[in-house]
Amino acid sequence: MQLKVKILGIDSGGKPIIYLNKKDADELNITASERVIVYSKKKITAIANISTIAVEKGYLGVNEEIRKSLSLKQNFKVEVEVAPFPKSLQFIRNKLSGKKLLYHEIKEIVQDLVDGNLNENEISAFVTSLHIDKIDLDEATSLSRAMVDTGKILKINKKIIADKHSIGGIPGDKTTLLVVPIIASEGFTIPKTSSRAITSVAGTADRAEVLMPVEFKIKKMLDVIKKSNGCIMWGGAIDLAPADDMFVKTEFSLHIDPLLLPSIMSKKKAVGTTHLVVDIPTGRGAKMKTTGEADLLARDIIELGRRLGIHTHCVVTFGDQPIGNTVGPALEAKEALEVIMNKRKVPDLIDKTCNIAGSLFGLLGKKDGYALAKTILESGKAEKKLREIIKAQGGNPSILPEDIPIGKHSMVIRSEKSGQVIWMENRIIVEIGRAAGAPKDKGAGIVFNKKIGDRVDKGELLFTVYAEKVHKLDRAKYILSTQKPLGVGEKSDMLIHTITESPVVERTFVIDR
Amino acid sequence: MQLKVKILGIDSGGKPIIYLNKKDADELNITASERVIVYSKKKITAIANISTIAVEKGYLGVNEEIRKSLSLKQNFKVEVEVAPFPKSLQFIRNKLSGKKLLYHEIKEIVQDLVDGNLNENEISAFVTSLHIDKIDLDEATSLSRAMVDTGKILKINKKIIADKHSIGGIPGDKTTLLVVPIIASEGFTIPKTSSRAITSVAGTADRAEVLMPVEFKIKKMLDVIKKSNGCIMWGGAIDLAPADDMFVKTEFSLHIDPLLLPSIMSKKKAVGTTHLVVDIPTGRGAKMKTTGEADLLARDIIELGRRLGIHTHCVVTFGDQPIGNTVGPALEAKEALEVIMNKRKVPDLIDKTCNIAGSLFGLLGKKDGYALAKTILESGKAEKKLREIIKAQGGNPSILPEDIPIGKHSMVIRSEKSGQVIWMENRIIVEIGRAAGAPKDKGAGIVFNKKIGDRVDKGELLFTVYAEKVHKLDRAKYILSTQKPLGVGEKSDMLIHTITESPVVERTFVIDR
Repeated sequence: MQLKVKILGIDSGGKPIIYLNKKDADELNITASERVIVYSKKKITAIANISTIAVEKGYLGVNEEIRKSLSLKQNFKVEVEVAPFPKSLQFIRNKLSGKKLLYHEIKEIVQDLVDGNLNENEISAFVTSLHIDKIDLDEATSLSRAMVDTGKILKINKKIIADKHSIGGIPGDKTTLLVVPIIASEGFTIPKTSSRAITSVAGTADRAEVLMPVEFKIKKMLDVIKKSNGCIMWGGAIDLAPADDMFVKTEFSLHIDPLLLPSIMSKKKAVGTTHLVVDIPTGRGAKMKTTGEADLLARDIIELGRRLGIHTHCVVTFGDQPIGNTVGPALEAKEALEVIMNKRKVPDLIDKTCNIAGSLFGLLGKKDGYALAKTILESGKAEKKLREIIKAQGGNPSILPEDIPIGKHSMVIRSEKSGQVIWMENRIIVEIGRAAGAPKDKGAGIVFNKKIGDRVDKGELLFTVYAEKVHKLDRAKYILSTQKPLGVGEKSDMLIHTITESPVVERTFVIDR
Repeated sequence: MQLKVKILGIDSGGKPIIYLNKKDADELNITASERVIVYSKKKITAIANISTIAVEKGYLGVNEEIRKSLSLKQNFKVEVEVAPFPKSLQFIRNKLSGKKLLYHEIKEIVQDLVDGNLNENEISAFVTSLHIDKIDLDEATSLSRAMVDTGKILKINKKIIADKHSIGGIPGDKTTLLVVPIIASEGFTIPKTSSRAITSVAGTADRAEVLMPVEFKIKKMLDVIKKSNGCIMWGGAIDLAPADDMFVKTEFSLHIDPLLLPSIMSKKKAVGTTHLVVDIPTGRGAKMKTTGEADLLARDIIELGRRLGIHTHCVVTFGDQPIGNTVGPALEAKEALEVIMNKRKVPDLIDKTCNIAGSLFGLLGKKDGYALAKTILESGKAEKKLREIIKAQGGNPSILPEDIPIGKHSMVIRSEKSGQVIWMENRIIVEIGRAAGAPKDKGAGIVFNKKIGDRVDKGELLFTVYAEKVHKLDRAKYILSTQKPLGVGEKSDMLIHTITESPVVERTFVIDR
């Protein structure tokens, strides 16, 4: 069917979308969310929206993605046809019927996802089926490979490439800012890509960005690694395993994350990782609630690593409360800088850093990894390497903690009674940090003066909330009026809460991984 | 956040959708497909799209649904806030975790669906979870009730309201056009609503529309029933159980139909049905492949009916081939008219009609239902009642078969060999009928001269394809060059097909029910 182009001037996050008048859609025998092929000099498959208003009969509304891809102009004539049924959809349907998928089937699905040939219903159904039926290790392997095979690959000419990763979920976890320079300072290559916060207060990319630029293309990434052995960059700009960035949108929307393992491992495989340590924070407010769960996840991660040719160890770490005393991009970058400069002792942060770096050293054949990591940290070698990385990425290599701006508006919270901090709630800490403006407002966040087990006197300072904007501080204040991020009491306090009728529980979901 | 309205002039099938500039979205801390509340004089919850082009910072792009609902104009100032997390989404998540849902939870989901508060991901995940985890009878009951409770209800002041329904899937099934007048002619009220074809060659609403108008609001429907005891109308115009029309879009897109039972029963409950016969066509090319499957479905339908206060019987009917000799709206209406006028004997159509009408008579307390139905048909009473209904719905009550226009372009297919028709394939029959232009082109379709078991000589006429437009006849011709709707051979022919490598099977999906 020949139609005239109508440019709608809307963009759809990378997806090619067309609008058809209801009459033309009926003539083509298609309904909303089916696929058409639009032919100009080139051709493109697009998802159809049906409209009675946006476009008149005889016209084809196109979004920016299609306009650019086909170099279309207003009133251009294009040919539109019903697209053949995508094979990948049949494979998704097979999964919905409980069939285990083979590599070539998963590859077809992931390729169609990346090419924008699957509509939201279909992506959601696939992700849901992976969640309900669970993916087994064969499918996780296929998904990891397919996600690598449909994106760019980093080619570093080294036999050994080290990396670390955390499955996430713990506020204030600035460990990566310390581990990467420690490993790189021993001459190992560690091309670390990190994510920005989606549901958290800060992602490692957000923290690192306080110290240096983090958005680069692959070529520049290779330059940086050549200069300094390591880097700390935002993975999203590099186009490694782009399928993951698409899946994660759906997972976030549904608050499920069946693709946790393939997501982590595909990104590692895409940068050529050969030796990997994965941190699994475990506890009340973490993704893994018990060490039993954590150990089972570790088993799968290690086996998946083996299948992908990545020698992997896991460390299960204490996840009941934030790491260190700060939460929020600038506050965390500052704390990490203070620790790497040996200006401040933050015992849990240092212990976690040395455990992860130590485990990675062990994997890489070094003895007494923990002690080695600690020595590197205390000797100033780690700081020197961090400043090299900051310089290579175009930041100020002489940056000092006091150079980092923190939100001007703040609010202190003091204890209403004496006792001991008996719990901290990561979920509420995240809500407060985000309400205060993080991760967008880098200076927003929380500084804790007390953590679990600390004695507190009535009126003593518990924590301070920082914000760049007054109205956001007010938002945080409002949350604090109804929910507490930590509890002060006696160890003998037993009641958690009472339920008197069918409860509706809102659980906060952490997709950052 | 205060924003200026930008009217985008696009409509989204009833869903309120807004476009936010990426910067404003970051400021609000929301990502695509999350919900916002837009406040003007009234307020509305809308799904957010994030754009970098469609709207500048400071502007809020609104679709037609929102413009109308809030009576907005260009540059109006509106307040936009993040919407609170919908309770229904928590319930959907519980279902994803394998929890059985309670009535008030399902009601909340269905209400949010109808109000446009759920995005496509969420609807799709819910439908997928119902498919994978299966819905049990408790959930089917809750879904049926919730779908009734969120739509309009037909209030007929009668103690007994009869109805019939087919789960669909068989081309050429014009039984309803005969059953409704037979039942109504005995003085029973039968307010039949039917669907239009989605994946089939013709829905009953499409067939009936050849004889009379079928789109009415509730008030006019009540008038028609008062005059003639029965009606044959398109359910889509009446707004009974609107949730079903929304679910069906997602089910169609995913090619799954977990809501089959609630869909059928909610529409019946919404018109006040007290006595119902459900036809379950069974066989190779039908939804139910075996009588075992069909009997289990019948068990669930009958129990669901009992819980909803609908006295229900099921009939399992032969579904290996089309009913009667015609497929396509006009051809089928013509055949039904010829049969009701006793101008032509179509044995399978007549037998199926008398079985369904007879079973319904039985339910209603009449003895020898089959014989009664046959007598009514042969006596001309059924024809008289059909013409009353046609008149009440504003059609021409004197319409004759020869008044019905059939596609001018046709193509005859003759047998290439002698033998017996050993199979017919509903799926391919549907593809040919739709390629020829049905259901949109009412005169398009197929007339069969031979059906299963018939002897055929080489060169003898098998069937004729009709189309209103030459290029659509060509499309049908193309399909016929690669696929056959029926097979002529000997009863001893054994091979179905050979598989030599991992096959990709495209199955056609029938959502019409």
